[in-house]
Amino acid sequence: MRYQLFYWPGIQGRGEFVRLALEEGGADYEDIARTAGAPALMAALEQADAAHPAFAPPFLKAGKLVIGQTANILLYLGPRLGLAPAGEAGRLWVNQLQLTIADMVTEAHDTHHPIASSLYYADQKAEALRRAQDFTANRMGKFLDYFERILVANPAGPRHLAGAALSYADLSLFQLVEGLFYAFPRAMKQLAPGLPHVLALHENIAHRPRIAAYLQSARRLPFNEDGIFRRYPELDAG
Amino acid sequence: MRYQLFYWPGIQGRGEFVRLALEEGGADYEDIARTAGAPALMAALEQADAAHPAFAPPFLKAGKLVIGQTANILLYLGPRLGLAPAGEAGRLWVNQLQLTIADMVTEAHDTHHPIASSLYYADQKAEALRRAQDFTANRMGKFLDYFERILVANPAGPRHLAGAALSYADLSLFQLVEGLFYAFPRAMKQLAPGLPHVLALHENIAHRPRIAAYLQSARRLPFNEDGIFRRYPELDAG
Repeated sequence: MRYQLFYWPGIQGRGEFVRLALEEGGADYEDIARTAGAPALMAALEQADAAHPAFAPPFLKAGKLVIGQTANILLYLGPRLGLAPAGEAGRLWVNQLQLTIADMVTEAHDTHHPIASSLYYADQKAEALRRAQDFTANRMGKFLDYFERILVANPAGPRHLAGAALSYADLSLFQLVEGLFYAFPRAMKQLAPGLPHVLALHENIAHRPRIAAYLQSARRLPFNEDGIFRRYPELDAG
Repeated sequence: MRYQLFYWPGIQGRGEFVRLALEEGGADYEDIARTAGAPALMAALEQADAAHPAFAPPFLKAGKLVIGQTANILLYLGPRLGLAPAGEAGRLWVNQLQLTIADMVTEAHDTHHPIASSLYYADQKAEALRRAQDFTANRMGKFLDYFERILVANPAGPRHLAGAALSYADLSLFQLVEGLFYAFPRAMKQLAPGLPHVLALHENIAHRPRIAAYLQSARRLPFNEDGIFRRYPELDAG
Protein backbone atom coordinates (compact mmCIF):
# COMPACT_ATOMS: atom_id res chain seq x y z
CA MET A 1 0.00 0.00 0.00
CA ARG A 2 1.36 3.40 -1.03
CA TYR A 3 -0.02 6.05 1.32
CA GLN A 4 -0.48 9.69 0.43
CA LEU A 5 -0.24 12.22 3.25
CA PHE A 6 -1.86 15.60 2.74
CA TYR A 7 -0.60 18.36 4.99
CA TRP A 8 0.55 21.98 4.84
CA PRO A 9 4.03 22.40 3.44
CA GLY A 10 6.69 24.17 5.47
CA ILE A 11 5.76 23.05 8.97
CA GLN A 12 5.87 19.90 11.06
CA GLY A 13 2.47 20.62 12.60
CA ARG A 14 0.01 17.85 13.27
CA GLY A 15 1.19 16.08 10.14
CA GLU A 16 4.42 15.22 11.94
CA PHE A 17 2.67 12.74 14.23
CA VAL A 18 1.60 10.84 11.11
CA ARG A 19 5.02 11.15 9.45
CA LEU A 20 6.79 9.67 12.48
CA ALA A 21 4.50 6.62 12.39
CA LEU A 22 4.96 6.21 8.64
CA GLU A 23 8.75 6.53 9.00
CA GLU A 24 9.07 4.15 11.95
CA GLY A 25 6.76 1.69 10.23
CA GLY A 26 8.85 1.75 7.06
CA ALA A 27 5.77 2.68 5.05
CA ASP A 28 5.76 3.60 1.40
CA TYR A 29 4.32 7.10 1.42
CA GLU A 30 4.22 10.36 -0.46
CA ASP A 31 4.04 13.72 1.29
CA ILE A 32 1.77 15.43 -1.21
CA ALA A 33 2.09 19.13 -0.41
CA ARG A 34 5.86 18.75 -0.36
CA THR A 35 6.11 16.81 -3.59
CA ALA A 36 3.20 18.30 -5.53
CA GLY A 37 2.90 21.70 -3.84
CA ALA A 38 0.29 23.43 -1.75
CA PRO A 39 -2.19 23.75 -4.66
CA ALA A 40 -2.51 19.96 -4.77
CA LEU A 41 -3.35 20.01 -1.07
CA MET A 42 -5.92 22.77 -1.44
CA ALA A 43 -7.52 21.04 -4.41
CA ALA A 44 -7.87 17.82 -2.43
CA LEU A 45 -9.24 19.69 0.58
CA GLU A 46 -11.86 21.56 -1.42
CA GLN A 47 -12.89 18.70 -3.66
CA ALA A 48 -16.58 19.52 -3.63
CA ASP A 49 -17.86 16.05 -4.51
CA ALA A 50 -15.93 14.19 -1.83
CA ALA A 51 -18.27 12.20 0.41
CA HIS A 52 -15.80 12.18 3.30
CA PRO A 53 -13.98 15.50 3.18
CA ALA A 54 -11.67 16.43 6.03
CA PHE A 55 -12.33 19.61 7.98
CA ALA A 56 -8.60 20.37 7.95
CA PRO A 57 -5.29 18.70 7.14
CA PRO A 58 -3.72 16.30 7.84
CA PHE A 59 -5.55 13.60 5.97
CA LEU A 60 -4.36 10.36 4.49
CA LYS A 61 -5.32 8.59 1.31
CA ALA A 62 -5.04 4.83 1.63
CA GLY A 63 -6.42 3.14 -1.47
CA LYS A 64 -10.04 4.25 -1.67
CA LEU A 65 -10.11 5.50 1.93
CA VAL A 66 -9.62 9.15 2.83
CA ILE A 67 -9.02 9.53 6.56
CA GLY A 68 -8.88 12.79 8.49
CA GLN A 69 -8.07 13.83 12.07
CA THR A 70 -4.57 12.97 13.28
CA ALA A 71 -5.61 10.52 15.99
CA ASN A 72 -7.98 8.80 13.57
CA ILE A 73 -5.25 8.42 10.94
CA LEU A 74 -3.03 6.84 13.57
CA LEU A 75 -5.87 4.58 14.74
CA TYR A 76 -5.98 3.27 11.16
CA LEU A 77 -2.24 3.08 10.59
CA GLY A 78 -1.21 1.71 13.98
CA PRO A 79 -2.08 -1.96 13.46
CA ARG A 80 -0.93 -1.87 9.82
CA LEU A 81 2.51 -0.51 10.71
CA GLY A 82 3.06 -2.70 13.78
CA LEU A 83 2.63 0.31 16.05
CA ALA A 84 -0.45 -0.69 18.05
CA PRO A 85 -1.31 -3.52 20.43
CA ALA A 86 -3.13 -6.54 19.04
CA GLY A 87 -6.23 -6.42 21.26
CA GLU A 88 -9.08 -3.96 21.53
CA ALA A 89 -8.26 -2.91 25.11
CA GLY A 90 -4.71 -2.00 24.15
CA ARG A 91 -5.80 -0.11 21.07
CA LEU A 92 -8.32 1.90 23.05
CA TRP A 93 -5.63 2.75 25.56
CA VAL A 94 -3.21 3.91 22.87
CA ASN A 95 -5.98 5.96 21.25
CA GLN A 96 -6.78 7.51 24.64
CA LEU A 97 -3.15 8.50 25.11
CA GLN A 98 -2.97 9.92 21.59
CA LEU A 99 -6.07 12.05 22.24
CA THR A 100 -4.56 13.36 25.47
CA ILE A 101 -1.36 14.25 23.60
CA ALA A 102 -3.55 16.00 21.01
CA ASP A 103 -5.21 18.01 23.77
CA MET A 104 -1.82 19.21 24.98
CA VAL A 105 -0.75 20.03 21.42
CA THR A 106 -3.82 22.25 21.05
CA GLU A 107 -3.01 24.01 24.32
CA ALA A 108 0.60 24.51 23.21
CA HIS A 109 -0.64 26.03 19.96
CA ASP A 110 -3.05 28.31 21.75
CA THR A 111 -0.24 29.86 23.81
CA HIS A 112 0.67 31.92 20.75
CA HIS A 113 -2.86 32.06 19.30
CA PRO A 114 -5.25 32.40 22.24
CA ILE A 115 -7.69 34.67 20.38
CA ALA A 116 -7.84 33.55 16.74
CA SER A 117 -5.86 31.30 14.42
CA SER A 118 -6.63 33.75 11.64
CA LEU A 119 -4.81 36.63 13.37
CA TYR A 120 -1.05 37.12 13.59
CA TYR A 121 0.76 36.47 16.83
CA ALA A 122 1.60 40.16 17.00
CA ASP A 123 -2.12 40.94 17.07
CA GLN A 124 -2.75 38.80 20.16
CA LYS A 125 0.56 39.07 21.97
CA ALA A 126 -0.79 40.48 25.22
CA GLU A 127 -3.28 37.63 25.50
CA ALA A 128 -0.59 35.14 24.48
CA LEU A 129 1.63 36.26 27.33
CA ARG A 130 -1.15 35.57 29.82
CA ARG A 131 -2.10 32.22 28.32
CA ALA A 132 1.51 31.06 28.05
CA GLN A 133 2.11 31.99 31.67
CA ASP A 134 -0.66 29.62 32.71
CA PHE A 135 0.54 26.95 30.29
CA THR A 136 4.12 26.93 31.56
CA ALA A 137 3.17 27.33 35.22
CA ASN A 138 0.26 24.89 35.39
CA ARG A 139 -0.60 22.93 32.28
CA MET A 140 2.79 21.64 31.13
CA GLY A 141 3.51 20.04 34.49
CA LYS A 142 0.04 18.58 34.77
CA PHE A 143 0.19 16.89 31.38
CA LEU A 144 3.82 15.75 31.57
CA ASP A 145 3.43 14.44 35.12
CA TYR A 146 0.50 12.41 33.85
CA PHE A 147 2.63 10.78 31.15
CA GLU A 148 5.42 10.17 33.68
CA ARG A 149 2.88 8.46 35.95
CA ILE A 150 1.62 6.32 33.04
CA LEU A 151 5.15 5.13 32.29
CA VAL A 152 5.81 4.29 35.94
CA ALA A 153 2.49 2.46 36.23
CA ASN A 154 2.98 0.38 33.07
CA PRO A 155 3.02 -3.25 34.28
CA ALA A 156 5.36 -4.10 31.39
CA GLY A 157 7.89 -1.48 32.47
CA PRO A 158 8.50 2.22 31.93
CA ARG A 159 10.07 1.99 28.47
CA HIS A 160 6.76 2.38 26.64
CA LEU A 161 3.40 4.00 27.36
CA ALA A 162 1.35 0.91 26.50
CA GLY A 163 2.52 -2.60 27.21
CA ALA A 164 5.93 -3.99 26.26
CA ALA A 165 6.12 -2.80 22.66
CA LEU A 166 6.50 0.47 20.83
CA SER A 167 3.24 2.16 19.83
CA TYR A 168 2.44 5.30 17.90
CA ALA A 169 1.64 6.98 21.22
CA ASP A 170 5.34 6.66 22.16
CA LEU A 171 6.31 8.34 18.88
CA SER A 172 3.79 11.09 19.52
CA LEU A 173 5.06 11.66 23.06
CA PHE A 174 8.56 11.98 21.61
CA GLN A 175 7.32 14.64 19.19
CA LEU A 176 5.43 16.47 21.93
CA VAL A 177 8.50 16.59 24.17
CA GLU A 178 10.68 17.63 21.23
CA GLY A 179 8.31 20.48 20.47
CA LEU A 180 8.12 21.60 24.08
CA PHE A 181 11.94 21.64 24.33
CA TYR A 182 11.99 23.85 21.25
CA ALA A 183 9.26 26.25 22.33
CA PHE A 184 9.68 26.32 26.10
CA PRO A 185 13.30 25.39 26.93
CA ARG A 186 13.31 27.15 30.30
CA ALA A 187 10.03 25.63 31.44
CA MET A 188 11.24 22.19 30.33
CA LYS A 189 14.50 22.63 32.23
CA GLN A 190 12.49 23.32 35.38
CA LEU A 191 10.24 20.30 34.87
CA ALA A 192 12.93 17.86 33.72
CA PRO A 193 13.99 16.54 37.16
CA GLY A 194 10.48 15.20 37.73
CA LEU A 195 10.24 13.50 34.33
CA PRO A 196 12.99 10.85 34.17
CA HIS A 197 10.94 8.27 32.28
CA VAL A 198 9.40 10.73 29.86
CA LEU A 199 12.86 12.04 29.00
CA ALA A 200 14.28 8.52 28.69
CA LEU A 201 11.50 7.63 26.27
CA HIS A 202 12.26 10.77 24.30
CA GLU A 203 15.93 9.73 24.07
CA ASN A 204 15.13 6.14 23.17
CA ILE A 205 12.82 7.14 20.35
CA ALA A 206 15.34 9.62 18.96
CA HIS A 207 17.89 6.82 18.67
CA ARG A 208 15.72 4.24 16.97
CA PRO A 209 17.43 3.64 13.62
CA ARG A 210 14.57 4.68 11.36
CA ILE A 211 13.66 7.71 13.47
CA ALA A 212 17.30 8.79 13.77
CA ALA A 213 17.69 8.49 9.99
CA TYR A 214 14.49 10.46 9.45
CA LEU A 215 15.50 13.22 11.87
CA GLN A 216 18.77 13.62 9.94
CA SER A 217 17.04 13.68 6.56
CA ALA A 218 15.71 16.59 4.55
CA ARG A 219 12.23 15.13 5.05
CA ARG A 220 12.29 16.33 8.67
CA LEU A 221 11.47 20.01 8.52
CA PRO A 222 12.98 22.17 11.25
CA PHE A 223 10.72 23.71 13.86
CA ASN A 224 9.87 27.28 12.95
CA GLU A 225 7.60 30.16 13.91
CA ASP A 226 4.83 29.12 11.52
CA GLY A 227 4.16 25.81 13.27
CA ILE A 228 2.50 24.66 16.45
CA PHE A 229 5.63 24.85 18.61
CA ARG A 230 7.17 28.31 18.30
CA ARG A 231 10.19 29.71 20.04
CA TYR A 232 9.00 33.04 21.33
CA PRO A 233 11.23 33.54 24.38
CA GLU A 234 8.77 35.96 25.94
CA LEU A 235 6.24 33.11 26.23
CA ASP A 236 8.63 30.76 28.03
CA ALA A 237 8.90 30.48 31.81
CA GLY A 238 10.81 33.30 33.51
CA MET B 1 -23.11 -5.12 30.90
CA ARG B 2 -23.72 -2.39 33.45
CA TYR B 3 -21.65 0.68 32.56
CA GLN B 4 -20.42 3.24 35.06
CA LEU B 5 -19.92 6.79 33.80
CA PHE B 6 -17.59 9.05 35.76
CA TYR B 7 -18.06 12.75 35.16
CA TRP B 8 -18.36 15.99 37.08
CA PRO B 9 -21.74 16.48 38.73
CA GLY B 10 -23.82 19.56 37.95
CA ILE B 11 -22.95 20.08 34.28
CA GLN B 12 -23.65 18.42 30.96
CA GLY B 13 -20.09 19.00 29.77
CA ARG B 14 -18.30 16.40 27.69
CA GLY B 15 -20.03 13.67 29.67
CA GLU B 16 -23.25 14.54 27.87
CA PHE B 17 -21.99 13.11 24.56
CA VAL B 18 -21.56 9.77 26.33
CA ARG B 19 -24.90 10.04 28.14
CA LEU B 20 -26.78 10.62 24.89
CA ALA B 21 -25.26 7.46 23.38
CA LEU B 22 -26.04 5.43 26.50
CA GLU B 23 -29.62 6.74 26.57
CA GLU B 24 -30.31 6.20 22.85
CA GLY B 25 -28.71 2.75 23.06
CA GLY B 26 -30.93 1.77 25.99
CA ALA B 27 -27.84 0.91 28.03
CA ASP B 28 -27.83 -0.06 31.67
CA TYR B 29 -25.62 2.61 33.25
CA GLU B 30 -24.90 4.46 36.45
CA ASP B 31 -23.85 8.10 36.49
CA ILE B 32 -21.40 7.86 39.36
CA ALA B 33 -20.81 11.44 40.44
CA ARG B 34 -24.57 12.00 40.43
CA THR B 35 -25.46 8.86 42.35
CA ALA B 36 -22.40 8.53 44.61
CA GLY B 37 -21.25 12.16 44.72
CA ALA B 38 -18.18 14.04 43.56
CA PRO B 39 -15.88 12.37 46.13
CA ALA B 40 -16.43 9.01 44.39
CA LEU B 41 -15.39 10.63 41.12
CA MET B 42 -12.28 12.20 42.61
CA ALA B 43 -11.30 8.95 44.31
CA ALA B 44 -11.57 7.09 41.01
CA LEU B 45 -9.63 9.81 39.20
CA GLU B 46 -6.77 9.83 41.67
CA GLN B 47 -6.55 6.09 42.18
CA ALA B 48 -2.79 5.94 42.32
CA ASP B 49 -2.42 2.30 41.37
CA ALA B 50 -4.54 2.43 38.26
CA ALA B 51 -2.57 1.30 35.20
CA HIS B 52 -4.80 3.22 32.81
CA PRO B 53 -5.81 6.39 34.62
CA ALA B 54 -7.67 9.07 32.68
CA PHE B 55 -6.19 12.55 32.45
CA ALA B 56 -9.64 14.02 33.06
CA PRO B 57 -13.30 12.99 33.16
CA PRO B 58 -15.31 11.64 31.49
CA PHE B 59 -14.27 8.04 31.75
CA LEU B 60 -16.26 4.87 31.57
CA LYS B 61 -15.93 1.62 33.46
CA ALA B 62 -17.04 -1.37 31.41
CA GLY B 63 -16.26 -4.57 33.24
CA LYS B 64 -12.49 -4.54 33.72
CA LEU B 65 -11.94 -1.80 31.16
CA VAL B 66 -11.53 1.84 32.14
CA ILE B 67 -11.80 4.07 29.08
CA GLY B 68 -11.07 7.79 28.97
CA GLN B 69 -11.42 10.56 26.36
CA THR B 70 -14.94 11.20 25.09
CA ALA B 71 -14.32 10.18 21.48
CA ASN B 72 -12.55 7.02 22.65
CA ILE B 73 -15.46 6.06 24.93
CA LEU B 74 -17.81 6.49 21.99
CA LEU B 75 -15.50 4.48 19.73
CA TYR B 76 -15.90 1.65 22.24
CA LEU B 77 -19.62 2.07 22.88
CA GLY B 78 -20.72 2.74 19.30
CA PRO B 79 -20.76 -0.83 17.97
CA ARG B 80 -22.06 -2.20 21.28
CA LEU B 81 -25.05 0.16 21.33
CA GLY B 82 -25.90 -0.12 17.64
CA LEU B 83 -24.67 3.42 17.05
CA ALA B 84 -21.77 2.81 14.64
CA PRO B 85 -21.45 1.34 11.14
CA ALA B 86 -20.45 -2.30 10.82
CA GLY B 87 -17.29 -1.85 8.76
CA GLU B 88 -13.93 -0.26 9.52
CA ALA B 89 -14.28 2.50 6.92
CA GLY B 90 -17.59 3.62 8.40
CA ARG B 91 -16.28 3.51 11.94
CA LEU B 92 -13.25 5.61 11.02
CA TRP B 93 -15.54 8.13 9.37
CA VAL B 94 -17.77 8.39 12.44
CA ASN B 95 -14.71 8.73 14.66
CA GLN B 96 -13.37 11.48 12.38
CA LEU B 97 -16.66 13.37 12.66
CA GLN B 98 -16.70 12.94 16.43
CA LEU B 99 -13.17 14.36 16.68
CA THR B 100 -14.16 17.35 14.57
CA ILE B 101 -17.18 17.93 16.81
CA ALA B 102 -14.81 17.69 19.80
CA ASP B 103 -12.56 20.34 18.25
CA MET B 104 -15.51 22.70 17.95
CA VAL B 105 -16.57 21.95 21.53
CA THR B 106 -13.11 22.96 22.74
CA GLU B 107 -13.30 26.20 20.77
CA ALA B 108 -16.78 26.91 22.18
CA HIS B 109 -15.41 26.37 25.69
CA ASP B 110 -12.44 28.62 25.07
CA THR B 111 -14.70 31.54 24.16
CA HIS B 112 -15.29 32.04 27.89
CA HIS B 113 -11.92 30.67 29.02
CA PRO B 114 -9.34 31.81 26.46
CA ILE B 115 -6.57 32.30 29.03
CA ALA B 116 -6.88 29.58 31.68
CA SER B 117 -9.47 27.02 32.76
CA SER B 118 -8.32 27.61 36.33
CA LEU B 119 -9.33 31.28 36.29
CA TYR B 120 -12.85 32.65 36.56
CA TYR B 121 -14.56 34.07 33.51
CA ALA B 122 -14.53 37.48 35.18
CA ASP B 123 -10.74 37.32 35.26
CA GLN B 124 -10.45 36.83 31.48
CA LYS B 125 -13.48 38.67 30.22
CA ALA B 126 -11.65 41.12 27.96
CA GLU B 127 -9.87 38.26 26.21
CA ALA B 128 -13.11 36.27 26.08
CA LEU B 129 -14.85 39.09 24.25
CA ARG B 130 -12.15 39.05 21.57
CA ARG B 131 -12.08 35.28 21.22
CA ALA B 132 -15.87 34.98 21.12
CA GLN B 133 -16.03 37.65 18.43
CA ASP B 134 -13.81 35.50 16.22
CA PHE B 135 -15.73 32.35 17.14
CA THR B 136 -19.15 33.74 16.24
CA ALA B 137 -17.90 35.64 13.15
CA ASN B 138 -15.62 32.97 11.66
CA ARG B 139 -15.42 29.62 13.40
CA MET B 140 -19.07 28.75 13.99
CA GLY B 141 -19.94 29.15 10.34
CA LYS B 142 -16.87 27.27 9.17
CA PHE B 143 -17.62 24.24 11.36
CA LEU B 144 -21.39 24.20 10.86
CA ASP B 145 -21.10 24.69 7.09
CA TYR B 146 -18.79 21.69 7.08
CA PHE B 147 -21.39 19.50 8.78
CA GLU B 148 -24.08 20.83 6.44
CA ARG B 149 -21.87 19.87 3.50
CA ILE B 150 -21.32 16.38 4.95
CA LEU B 151 -25.07 15.82 5.25
CA VAL B 152 -25.69 17.00 1.69
CA ALA B 153 -22.85 14.82 0.37
CA ASN B 154 -23.99 11.67 2.17
CA PRO B 155 -24.78 9.17 -0.63
CA ALA B 156 -27.43 7.61 1.66
CA GLY B 157 -29.22 10.92 2.10
CA PRO B 158 -29.01 13.96 4.36
CA ARG B 159 -30.78 12.46 7.37
CA HIS B 160 -27.58 11.16 8.98
CA LEU B 161 -23.91 12.12 8.93
CA ALA B 162 -22.66 8.62 8.11
CA GLY B 163 -24.57 6.22 5.88
CA ALA B 164 -28.25 5.38 6.24
CA ALA B 165 -28.40 4.71 9.98
CA LEU B 166 -28.12 6.72 13.16
CA SER B 167 -24.62 6.94 14.65
CA TYR B 168 -23.24 8.50 17.80
CA ALA B 169 -21.88 11.33 15.63
CA ASP B 170 -25.48 12.32 14.87
CA LEU B 171 -26.25 12.43 18.60
CA SER B 172 -23.13 14.50 19.21
CA LEU B 173 -24.03 16.96 16.45
CA PHE B 174 -27.46 17.33 18.07
CA GLN B 175 -25.77 18.15 21.38
CA LEU B 176 -23.36 20.58 19.75
CA VAL B 177 -26.20 22.45 18.02
CA GLU B 178 -28.24 22.42 21.23
CA GLY B 179 -25.32 23.94 23.12
CA LEU B 180 -24.68 26.57 20.47
CA PHE B 181 -28.36 27.58 20.50
CA TYR B 182 -28.10 28.02 24.25
CA ALA B 183 -24.82 29.94 24.29
CA PHE B 184 -25.01 31.89 21.03
CA PRO B 185 -28.68 32.32 20.09
CA ARG B 186 -28.07 35.44 18.00
CA ALA B 187 -25.17 33.93 16.06
CA MET B 188 -27.21 30.76 15.45
CA LYS B 189 -30.15 32.80 14.19
CA GLN B 190 -27.85 34.42 11.64
CA LEU B 191 -26.39 31.09 10.51
CA ALA B 192 -29.63 29.08 10.52
CA PRO B 193 -30.76 29.84 6.93
CA GLY B 194 -27.62 28.17 5.61
CA LEU B 195 -27.98 25.06 7.74
CA PRO B 196 -31.26 23.37 6.77
CA HIS B 197 -29.98 19.81 7.07
CA VAL B 198 -28.05 20.38 10.29
CA LEU B 199 -31.17 21.88 11.87
CA ALA B 200 -33.38 19.07 10.54
CA LEU B 201 -31.01 16.51 12.07
CA HIS B 202 -31.16 18.42 15.36
CA GLU B 203 -34.96 18.28 15.28
CA ASN B 204 -35.08 14.61 14.31
CA ILE B 205 -32.76 13.58 17.13
CA ALA B 206 -34.72 15.60 19.69
CA HIS B 207 -37.86 13.67 18.74
CA ARG B 208 -36.44 10.17 18.88
CA PRO B 209 -38.46 8.46 21.64
CA ARG B 210 -35.56 7.63 23.95
CA ILE B 211 -33.87 11.00 23.49
CA ALA B 212 -37.14 12.88 23.94
CA ALA B 213 -37.80 10.92 27.15
CA TYR B 214 -34.28 11.60 28.37
CA LEU B 215 -34.49 15.32 27.62
CA GLN B 216 -37.70 15.49 29.68
CA SER B 217 -36.21 13.54 32.58
CA ALA B 218 -34.37 14.76 35.66
CA ARG B 219 -31.27 12.96 34.32
CA ARG B 220 -30.84 15.71 31.71
CA LEU B 221 -29.23 18.58 33.55
CA PRO B 222 -30.05 22.05 32.28
CA PHE B 223 -27.34 24.08 30.58
CA ASN B 224 -25.77 26.48 33.03
CA GLU B 225 -22.85 28.89 33.44
CA ASP B 226 -20.53 26.24 34.88
CA GLY B 227 -20.52 24.10 31.75
CA ILE B 228 -18.98 24.26 28.29
CA PHE B 229 -21.85 26.16 26.67
CA ARG B 230 -22.58 29.30 28.69
CA ARG B 231 -25.10 32.02 28.00
CA TYR B 232 -23.09 35.19 28.39
CA PRO B 233 -24.98 37.58 26.09
CA GLU B 234 -21.93 39.82 25.74
CA LEU B 235 -20.12 36.94 23.97
CA ASP B 236 -22.87 36.34 21.41
CA ALA B 237 -22.97 37.97 17.99
CA GLY B 238 -24.10 41.60 17.97
